[in-house]
Amino acid sequence: MDSCDGEVAWRFGAAKPELAAADGEIRMRALVSRIYGCVDASDPRPVVPLASGDPTPFACFRTAPAAEEAVTAAVASGKHNGYPSATGVTEACSAVATYLSRYLPYELSTGYPLYEARAALSGLKFLHYDLLPEKGWEVDIQGVKALANENTVAMVIVNPNNPSGAVYSSHHLAKIAETARELGIMVISDEVYEHFVFGNKPFVPMGVFGEIAPVVTLGGISKRWMVPGWKLGWIAMTDPKGILRKKKIFASIIVYRGISVDPAAIVQGAIPQIIANTDETFFTNAMNVMRETAEICYQKLKGIKGVTCPHKPEGSMFVMVKLDMSCFCGIDDDIEFCCKLAKEESVVISPGSGLEMKNWLRISIAVDPPLLEDGLERVKSFCLRHVKPIIMNQAS
Amino acid sequence: MDSCDGEVAWRFGAAKPELAAADGEIRMRALVSRIYGCVDASDPRPVVPLASGDPTPFACFRTAPAAEEAVTAAVASGKHNGYPSATGVTEACSAVATYLSRYLPYELSTGYPLYEARAALSGLKFLHYDLLPEKGWEVDIQGVKALANENTVAMVIVNPNNPSGAVYSSHHLAKIAETARELGIMVISDEVYEHFVFGNKPFVPMGVFGEIAPVVTLGGISKRWMVPGWKLGWIAMTDPKGILRKKKIFASIIVYRGISVDPAAIVQGAIPQIIANTDETFFTNAMNVMRETAEICYQKLKGIKGVTCPHKPEGSMFVMVKLDMSCFCGIDDDIEFCCKLAKEESVVISPGSGLEMKNWLRISIAVDPPLLEDGLERVKSFCLRHVKPIIMNQAS
Repeated sequence: MDSCDGEVAWRFGAAKPELAAADGEIRMRALVSRIYGCVDASDPRPVVPLASGDPTPFACFRTAPAAEEAVTAAVASGKHNGYPSATGVTEACSAVATYLSRYLPYELSTGYPLYEARAALSGLKFLHYDLLPEKGWEVDIQGVKALANENTVAMVIVNPNNPSGAVYSSHHLAKIAETARELGIMVISDEVYEHFVFGNKPFVPMGVFGEIAPVVTLGGISKRWMVPGWKLGWIAMTDPKGILRKKKIFASIIVYRGISVDPAAIVQGAIPQIIANTDETFFTNAMNVMRETAEICYQKLKGIKGVTCPHKPEGSMFVMVKLDMSCFCGIDDDIEFCCKLAKEESVVISPGSGLEMKNWLRISIAVDPPLLEDGLERVKSFCLRHVKPIIMNQAS
Repeated sequence: MDSCDGEVAWRFGAAKPELAAADGEIRMRALVSRIYGCVDASDPRPVVPLASGDPTPFACFRTAPAAEEAVTAAVASGKHNGYPSATGVTEACSAVATYLSRYLPYELSTGYPLYEARAALSGLKFLHYDLLPEKGWEVDIQGVKALANENTVAMVIVNPNNPSGAVYSSHHLAKIAETARELGIMVISDEVYEHFVFGNKPFVPMGVFGEIAPVVTLGGISKRWMVPGWKLGWIAMTDPKGILRKKKIFASIIVYRGISVDPAAIVQGAIPQIIANTDETFFTNAMNVMRETAEICYQKLKGIKGVTCPHKPEGSMFVMVKLDMSCFCGIDDDIEFCCKLAKEESVVISPGSGLEMKNWLRISIAVDPPLLEDGLERVKSFCLRHVKPIIMNQAS
C-alpha cells in the first residue's frame, strides 16, 4: 500500500540511488557541514572559518580591479551573452595558451578548450599513493611504483599541493616524470594553485618535463585571481612527442568538451583582459599576505601541545597538521576534535578524515591575518583545556 | 615499435575511447559545423545563421538592461567571487522559487538548487516517442503507452517545444499527466523556453498538474532573458503528494547537486535583481519581435515549392519544416539540401537528421526580421533552381 497516493503504483525510485557512491568531496562537505553545525550560536565571537580555502570574504583578498573591470566590460559589451562555440571563446583560448606558454619551453597552440576538468576523470578507478610529510610532502615515488600495475594509465599530482601546502622542486618534478615514463603512464598535473607560492621554491609547471612523459595540466583563474565562484578552468596538454595525440587522449578530450558544461561566456569573454591587465602588484601583494599568514600559522602551531606541523606551507591555501591523540583527554579522533573545537571556540577546521588522513587537520591560511591569529589562539586555549594532565610517578 | 617514442611502451589510450558514444547534441553540432564548412567564403552576402537558436548577435534581442546591471553590480560588490554554498546562493534559490511559484498552484520552498540539469539524466536509456505534426506537434499519447514498459521511470516533455515551436495546451498537459499516472512514471518537463510564447496559447507549467503525477521541471534564464552564455539553469520539483521524496528522487538530486558544476556565483548573485528588476516591456518587446519572425517565416515558407510547414510556431526559437524530396532534382536528403544551400546561398539551416527526423529542416526564427526575410528569399531562389521541371504528358 502506497501511503502517499494509494491507487497508483509509482515505478521509479531506485532501492539504492545511483548517486549514492559519494566521492571524497561529498564526504568532506558533509563533515564540514556537520562541524559548522557544532558551532554555538550564542558565542559572541566571530566564527573563524579555517575549513574551506576561500579567501574571498576578506578585503585583503579582493580580486584584481582589472578582473572586475574585464567582466563588467564583457557584460556591457553584450557580446558574450550567447553560446560560446563548442571550442570555447577563441580569444579566451588564445589568451590562456599564451599565458601558459610563458612558463613552458613549448608554445601551446590555441584551440585547447577551457573546461572544468573533473569529469574528464570520471569512470576511472583511483588508487591512492602517499605523500611523505617528513620529506616536505614529496610524492612517495617507490610507493607509486609499487601501486601501479598494467591497468594504470596516469598518475595525478597536485602542485602547489592542496592540502599540504607543499611546492615541488624542479628536481622532484623531473623524478615524477621519469617515474611516469618508466611505468608508461601520463602525468595529470592539477596546477589550479599555479604561481600561488610564497615560500622559497618557485612554481615550476609539470609541462616543463613533457619531453620525458606526456602531461595533462588542469588549471584555472580560481586561485591566483581569487575568484573560485567564477567557475572558469582549463585543461592543457604538453605533448611534444605527440603521444597523447597518437593514443587518442587528445581526441577523447575534444569529444568530451562537446558534452561538458561551458564556463559562463561573460567570464570567458573577460579572460583576455583579465590576463593582460592584471597588475603584477596584485599578485605580489596577495602572496605577501599569504606569506604572513603561513608564518603566523606555523609559529602559532609550534606553541600548541598535541599538534605538529611537519612542514611550513609554501603554496596553496592549506597546511596539514598532525594531532597526537595521546595528548588529549576525552577526544578520540580528528572529527571529535573539530566538533568540540567548533562548539567551544567557534573555530571551524576540516578534519583529515575527510581526506583519508585520520587524526590530521587541514587548516586554511587564506584568512585575514588578525582573524587567523585569533582563531589559532582559540585552538591553543582549546588544546590546553583538553590536554591530559602529566602524571608524575614516584621513582621506584 | 612506437614511432613517436621508441623506447617506451605507453600504456594508456583505449582502443575505443570511453567518450566515443556521442549523443544527439554532438551529432547535431558536427552536422552544423559541416554545413558551415560548405559556405562559400567569396559570397559577399552576409551568412544567415538559421541553425542554432541564439538570438544574442542581434541588437533587437539584447538582454534586459536590468540583467546587465544586476551582473555588473554582483561583480562590483565583490560578494560573489567565492564558492557559492553547495546548496546554491540562498537569495538566488529563493528568488527562483518565488519566481516559479508565481505560475503554480503550489508555493515552492527554497533550497531547490540551481543546477544544469542535463547530467541528472545520465546513465539512463532513452526511448523516443513521436510528436504529431498534424496535431500541432502534440505528444503521441498512444505511442508513449505502447513504448513504456516496466523499466520506464519517466517521460520527458519539452514545452514550449524545441524543435517544433509548439506550445502545449492545458488540456494536453493534463492528458500527459494522466498518462504518466497510468504508467506510474514521473514527468520531466523541460521548460527552458517557459513564457517564451508568441501565439494564441499561453504557457502553462507542467507543475500545475503535480497532483496527478509528480513533475521535475528544468528551466533557466537562458531563453527568456536571452543569455544562454550565462549558463544558469535550475531544477524544481512539484511533488504535492510527496512521491518524489518517498521514492528518493529528491534525495538523489540533493546528492547530485554536490558533484555537479555550479553556475558562476556572479550570475547566481545577480539572479534576485535579474528577476525582480526586469521590466515587463522587455519580455513584451521580445515576444513582439518573435511573433513577427514567426509570421515572416510561416508566410515565406508557404510560397516555396517542396517545403511544408505543418504548424506555425507559437513558442521557442524554432520551427520544423518538411522537405518533399520528390520535388528536387539532384538533392537526395536533408543533409545534402543544407550543404548545397549553405554553399550556394550562405544560409545555414540544421538538417532534421541531426534530430532523427530525416528530410526535415529545423529553422531558427530568433533572427533579426530583415535578415530572416533575406535568408528565406534565398531559400526560395535555391528551391526554384533545384526543383524538378514539370513534365507535361500528352493526354492519351
